[in-house]
Amino acid sequence: MNSFGNIFRITLYGESHGKEIGVVVDGCPAGIPLSENDLLPDIERRKTGGHATSTRTESDIPEIRSGIYRGHTTGTPIIIIFKNENFCDEDYQFDGFFRPGHADYTAYRKYNGYNNPLGGGQFSGRMTLPLVAAGCIAKKIIPTTEISAHILPECLANIEKAIASNDSAGGIVECRIRNLEAGIGEPFFDSLESLISHAIFSIPGAKAIEFGNGIASASMLGSEYNDCIVSSDGKTATNNCGGINGGISNGNDVVFRTYFHPTPSIAKKQKTFNFNTMQVEDLKINGRHDTCFALRTPVIVEALTAIALADLTLISKATKL
Amino acid sequence: MNSFGNIFRITLYGESHGKEIGVVVDGCPAGIPLSENDLLPDIERRKTGGHATSTRTESDIPEIRSGIYRGHTTGTPIIIIFKNENFCDEDYQFDGFFRPGHADYTAYRKYNGYNNPLGGGQFSGRMTLPLVAAGCIAKKIIPTTEISAHILPECLANIEKAIASNDSAGGIVECRIRNLEAGIGEPFFDSLESLISHAIFSIPGAKAIEFGNGIASASMLGSEYNDCIVSSDGKTATNNCGGINGGISNGNDVVFRTYFHPTPSIAKKQKTFNFNTMQVEDLKINGRHDTCFALRTPVIVEALTAIALADLTLISKATKL
Amino acid sequence: MNSFGNIFRITLYGESHGKEIGVVVDGCPAGIPLSENDLLPDIERRKTGGHATSTRTESDIPEIRSGIYRGHTTGTPIIIIFKNENFCDEDYQFDGFFRPGHADYTAYRKYNGYNNPLGGGQFSGRMTLPLVAAGCIAKKIIPTTEISAHILPECLANIEKAIASNDSAGGIVECRIRNLEAGIGEPFFDSLESLISHAIFSIPGAKAIEFGNGIASASMLGSEYNDCIVSSDGKTATNNCGGINGGISNGNDVVFRTYFHPTPSIAKKQKTFNFNTMQVEDLKINGRHDTCFALRTPVIVEALTAIALADLTLISKATKL
Amino acid sequence: MNSFGNIFRITLYGESHGKEIGVVVDGCPAGIPLSENDLLPDIERRKTGGHATSTRTESDIPEIRSGIYRGHTTGTPIIIIFKNENFCDEDYQFDGFFRPGHADYTAYRKYNGYNNPLGGGQFSGRMTLPLVAAGCIAKKIIPTTEISAHILPECLANIEKAIASNDSAGGIVECRIRNLEAGIGEPFFDSLESLISHAIFSIPGAKAIEFGNGIASASMLGSEYNDCIVSSDGKTATNNCGGINGGISNGNDVVFRTYFHPTPSIAKKQKTFNFNTMQVEDLKINGRHDTCFALRTPVIVEALTAIALADLTLISKATKL
Repeated sequence: MNSFGNIFRITLYGESHGKEIGVVVDGCPAGIPLSENDLLPDIERRKTGGHATSTRTESDIPEIRSGIYRGHTTGTPIIIIFKNENFCDEDYQFDGFFRPGHADYTAYRKYNGYNNPLGGGQFSGRMTLPLVAAGCIAKKIIPTTEISAHILPECLANIEKAIASNDSAGGIVECRIRNLEAGIGEPFFDSLESLISHAIFSIPGAKAIEFGNGIASASMLGSEYNDCIVSSDGKTATNNCGGINGGISNGNDVVFRTYFHPTPSIAKKQKTFNFNTMQVEDLKINGRHDTCFALRTPVIVEALTAIALADLTLISKATKL
Repeated sequence: MNSFGNIFRITLYGESHGKEIGVVVDGCPAGIPLSENDLLPDIERRKTGGHATSTRTESDIPEIRSGIYRGHTTGTPIIIIFKNENFCDEDYQFDGFFRPGHADYTAYRKYNGYNNPLGGGQFSGRMTLPLVAAGCIAKKIIPTTEISAHILPECLANIEKAIASNDSAGGIVECRIRNLEAGIGEPFFDSLESLISHAIFSIPGAKAIEFGNGIASASMLGSEYNDCIVSSDGKTATNNCGGINGGISNGNDVVFRTYFHPTPSIAKKQKTFNFNTMQVEDLKINGRHDTCFALRTPVIVEALTAIALADLTLISKATKL
Repeated sequence: MNSFGNIFRITLYGESHGKEIGVVVDGCPAGIPLSENDLLPDIERRKTGGHATSTRTESDIPEIRSGIYRGHTTGTPIIIIFKNENFCDEDYQFDGFFRPGHADYTAYRKYNGYNNPLGGGQFSGRMTLPLVAAGCIAKKIIPTTEISAHILPECLANIEKAIASNDSAGGIVECRIRNLEAGIGEPFFDSLESLISHAIFSIPGAKAIEFGNGIASASMLGSEYNDCIVSSDGKTATNNCGGINGGISNGNDVVFRTYFHPTPSIAKKQKTFNFNTMQVEDLKINGRHDTCFALRTPVIVEALTAIALADLTLISKATKL
Repeated sequence: MNSFGNIFRITLYGESHGKEIGVVVDGCPAGIPLSENDLLPDIERRKTGGHATSTRTESDIPEIRSGIYRGHTTGTPIIIIFKNENFCDEDYQFDGFFRPGHADYTAYRKYNGYNNPLGGGQFSGRMTLPLVAAGCIAKKIIPTTEISAHILPECLANIEKAIASNDSAGGIVECRIRNLEAGIGEPFFDSLESLISHAIFSIPGAKAIEFGNGIASASMLGSEYNDCIVSSDGKTATNNCGGINGGISNGNDVVFRTYFHPTPSIAKKQKTFNFNTMQVEDLKINGRHDTCFALRTPVIVEALTAIALADLTLISKATKL
């Protein structure tokens, strides 16, 4: 359940306020140059620090503790760990509130109260840090493919509004994949859309995804929607399908958008159920939080996309004669 | 790649114009009453026949050929097959055109020309028939959970327009899951959203999915979005999150919408590349096609949802003390 | 549970006296020439007919019903089915006896009495027929590797003794793999020994396996056991390790032996518990049975070996730079 | 490839002389009491120290760095790490020799020379340390089942002979599982024998396995082999099948024996190929080595058995109505 991928497979562990978080990357071919330095630029991109992101500071220094030798991958599992400086084992006292929009209540129910509640436990955005590191390795497996994601400018006004009102905001992140060869994606169940969405919905806050003009397409006519081929390399005049037909890449850019809900932690008062007093009461959440976690997600979206593509690319290679 | 699920696992096979299509259902507990009759109502719902759906007629009679004995499941794999009456092994001649919006081109590229092109091969909507049958078994594993999907009425005007203009239309299908216990869904990678979207994007034509008000949420403030709990059973005042927090069911209705693009086959002329003449030419597609395949998808959406939920429910049962 | 393999994956279904038995083969590359005729020689080798094998006669005609087009694999799942001519849906009456050495009792317990008891249900040696067919496809994926198995002549005396005394016999099958490239096998858990033994123990009656001189090696000294390399291609002077070091092929012949227990069905009287009368009584089993099922297993051992090797070879290809 | 298990799943990482070794344990139910102390007795049993085992000393202190909170499992992945005090990143110079019986040559071939050769890299017996720790958690999932393994006394004479002659010895380890309920094991491919052997052959040096009297059974008659039931709880008069029929536990003790080859590193001179000089030469191996690694394996055998049984038990629970 905490693993993803078939050949290129990652296994994630840790909690927000536990001793460390990390990821094991299996299935990486031997002989790829790799060091911690290769991970730093993407880790930096993910870091807090924008005026709408959390003030929790962690040094976020990756340590690769297995799977490399003399600066190259060995073909055996690579573990990357991050120490939690905010490690905490305090005697947590439940105050009766499960924070609205958080996994507090569902985790409590799922694990019969044995979940680690500190800082959201495994459900923290902090868990995306090892994913970004794993994504850097995935990107090395598909070196000619470019993956780039950014938040849409139309979201910024809402973010400013949220800052001004002690509130939080969501956002839309568009991801574009260039130079992905045609033929990637496995019918019937492991289509590009299936695997990318599976990976992307692991990111806390992701609530919708569309490929190409997926949402608008539901209101189109076929004659408007169809992307006609214009040259022998399969290039199409339009790209409504987002570069994917029948779940398989067609050689055009793959484009998809992820919709993130607003950060659930807000400084504003909320009325919600107190399970100690058994009545609805005011809740005011303190602490460090992102006004807009979505601002930090483009590099995370890229990472999970790269992880899915690396796996599909290795599978494609395996099954080519 | 043609299997889905961990414990409750289905394996799909067949092609549109091959001898038969079918599904193997593994991991089904022994002792569940089951016969072909149990599959008929959902198969009927999927069938063609509406004025905007294909006129291809197949009897769609399911045959269970293993895994049941004396009217009950035996615990061993259940195979359900459907004979193709439109079986065809003709000497297909490539006319130079890969139909726009179809998997013709990508399948050709992926399989180096060895794919079965007749009727779309494995990429046909016909492959959803065994999925509907498997979904009926899945529903029996979670008998108290109700899953119901329907196309949104706002799509109907566009469909009428498509009929009138020899064109095709897409559609939006909303699915609601009632009485799903809290605690279903596996962090980190096998969240409810991840597994449902993985399954749903197997349906030909699915191009976007949103959970709850996922699309709108990206433009909301946190104070608008958060679903506050109002009673001790976890019921919330609003349901913007679609019944899922942190990837886990919270005991409220799970709601999601799937966006289908228009059926790519249209009677209207399209300009696209002819790989024989190596230039862009007019293409006119004949044959039987759905004006709006989305009209047939609600029962398919239900089936894939049930399959994902059955698997997650068995996993949840396995890991409860 | 009824699937085996990671990339090259087979799914088995059916029961001894059900309507049909079969196998779905997924992950087979597109473009491999394949027809039913290719399956016949190995199917023939498996057939009953020797003087120490069962007199049940089935035509054992394979039908490939998906996944091939114009004489080649399409890259999509291949289903191979065998109709059961001995299909039976009689009103079975439990006579109080679970046959000694059979899965009658364990299947009853596992499936709470819902298992199909006719002819052993899923636990019949008949289930190895689709495996032999799948093995033929696997062999085509590793065309330069030769796999050949045979029963050791030292077993024949015991078989003659069994025939003479209305009894049954076991046997030892040796399998030799020639021309397997060095480097096949995946540490840590998917070593050659792990995957081959996993596959081989699927064969009814297999109770022990040794690689190279595995059994004797436990009583050797290191100086006797070690296989020293004698040339630059890795050839060794001896082959005590059976061509496998650290779970990975070393380029020498891979050799292993499988030990099969005697066929449990014997015409001789046995004293065993009657669950109707609740006391130990005489049981005499009638019907058609192999005196020595092991005689039929060499081609089955080859098939399962080929299946494991095909999968490991595809994985090796995927993870090579 | 470095993961094992379906629901209860372990992922192993690390190298003999890398920074650390460890294991991630996923699928463990929430609420099980667990601390590092619970791991110490089995770790101690595995440790070097007998007069026929290596003198390499490592403190072998386990650190659980995720997945527990307030002394209980949380349901999320548990990572257990062991620091390598013998960490080494020296500038290794290949001396032309691949040690006979080791994975040196096969690892070199598999990973194109990118493997970590220090101390055997991932192929070291040290990798069994995290497995023993994971086994302790597995044992807690099946608390009423007793697993106990020991080396057969008949091996001791050979070990003494090896010590006296600067040589090494193999050994046979018998494992007995008491109180395993009937019905555990999944046909067709995930039988008890298949999964136990898959797990056991991960242990360096394992070269053969037999269940019950598997080896002898191949030379028996059916009337000698069959285990007749003698009471209503399924107890049998004999136990030739080792408690397993049709791949499923029958409620009697499960018994199997693993055959380990001698430790390949010996102080005695060996003649083997020098890839620098391209001729066969004398090789003398120095360093700390077990005279008989098999002596340390009983607790490892238990651990891998427990891991396989924990997984099968969770699957059995999932698929019971």
